[in-house]
Amino acid sequence: MLTEFLIQTTGPGLYEFTTDIRRWLAGQGDGLLTLMVRHTSCSLLMQENADPEVQTDLTAFFERLVPPSDHPSMSYLRHTYEGPDDMPAHIKAALMPVSLGLPVQGGVPMLGTWQGIYLVEHRNAPHRRKVAAHFG
Amino acid sequence: MLTEFLIQTTGPGLYEFTTDIRRWLAGQGDGLLTLMVRHTSCSLLMQENADPEVQTDLTAFFERLVPPSDHPSMSYLRHTYEGPDDMPAHIKAALMPVSLGLPVQGGVPMLGTWQGIYLVEHRNAPHRRKVAAHFG
Amino acid sequence: MLTEFLIQTTGPGLYEFTTDIRRWLAGQGDGLLTLMVRHTSCSLLMQENADPEVQTDLTAFFERLVPPSDHPSMSYLRHTYEGPDDMPAHIKAALMPVSLGLPVQGGVPMLGTWQGIYLVEHRNAPHRRKVAAHFG
Repeated sequence: MLTEFLIQTTGPGLYEFTTDIRRWLAGQGDGLLTLMVRHTSCSLLMQENADPEVQTDLTAFFERLVPPSDHPSMSYLRHTYEGPDDMPAHIKAALMPVSLGLPVQGGVPMLGTWQGIYLVEHRNAPHRRKVAAHFG
Repeated sequence: MLTEFLIQTTGPGLYEFTTDIRRWLAGQGDGLLTLMVRHTSCSLLMQENADPEVQTDLTAFFERLVPPSDHPSMSYLRHTYEGPDDMPAHIKAALMPVSLGLPVQGGVPMLGTWQGIYLVEHRNAPHRRKVAAHFG
Repeated sequence: MLTEFLIQTTGPGLYEFTTDIRRWLAGQGDGLLTLMVRHTSCSLLMQENADPEVQTDLTAFFERLVPPSDHPSMSYLRHTYEGPDDMPAHIKAALMPVSLGLPVQGGVPMLGTWQGIYLVEHRNAPHRRKVAAHFG
């Protein structure tokens, strides 16, 4: 079966939607869940859902690894007409996953104790993100 | 069902094969498409297919993040006997996806408007790359 | 069908479990294998299984890209209470895959000649890692 999850973002960071996924799979049996972002400037992560500082630190690391295109170290970038966060967002979407596969047992994703599922927004402006999902 | 896509490369960069994928899936129903490169020195990306400068910028970023092994900053690398682009290719293949999962609706991958599917070549010499594909 | 692979680690590096996977799939037909780590501080890689220096070089690259949190360049990190290898492990788990999809033909994963499947440990202390697997 197929569905689409909609996630409203308000700037760079991690947006958890594990609960939406669990709700969609409830009552299903064993199988495989696959998630895919329908965009080229955001990503998907399975990450720790205990300490929120993990999320802050992740965003900070990637902001340093891939600075805005108006930063001197990024002067070689050419695709800049949508703003200084445009091309770095595409690069981050190449560095972090855009699709995830999750084994499901008795309608429950086989996540570890501390694993949550996140959409990672790379753009500064608010976006309404779509995540395509397949279970079978 | 299974198949293999063959992609001839001529140096570092992105090679789109979205059309081959669409042709293979045409007439199928709902399901899941999975792609996997059968190599350890190239990758797969879902990326923007509108402005070709996105592809140039992506290649340029990764060339800076992982310079050739004869660059002073990479002098710690040991696996260098196939040339200075050898070990950096393996590293890029660890940083960018080597497999992708795509939900398919009515025989059409649920890609966003600007998403194309690319093989990313990391080696300098021409290669004939194989991408294994499963639909079910 | 579902299973879980257990991999005992003894510090940072790559741990191959291709043989366990092949054994589990032996006698099956065509299909799709999906692997997922049940943790947020280790990863999965398909990488070269010929020259062990590839694995050493990969670990060395990521150690330089994401140094321990007591390194001056990482002073902005806040999630540090489990030790200097804690937050870098989460970052590496965002940079390298945590799930992989592998087309399978006649009970054999369609890996290339030099491809092996590895768990990548990012923590210093020994861990007993769980990899969830689905075949169907």
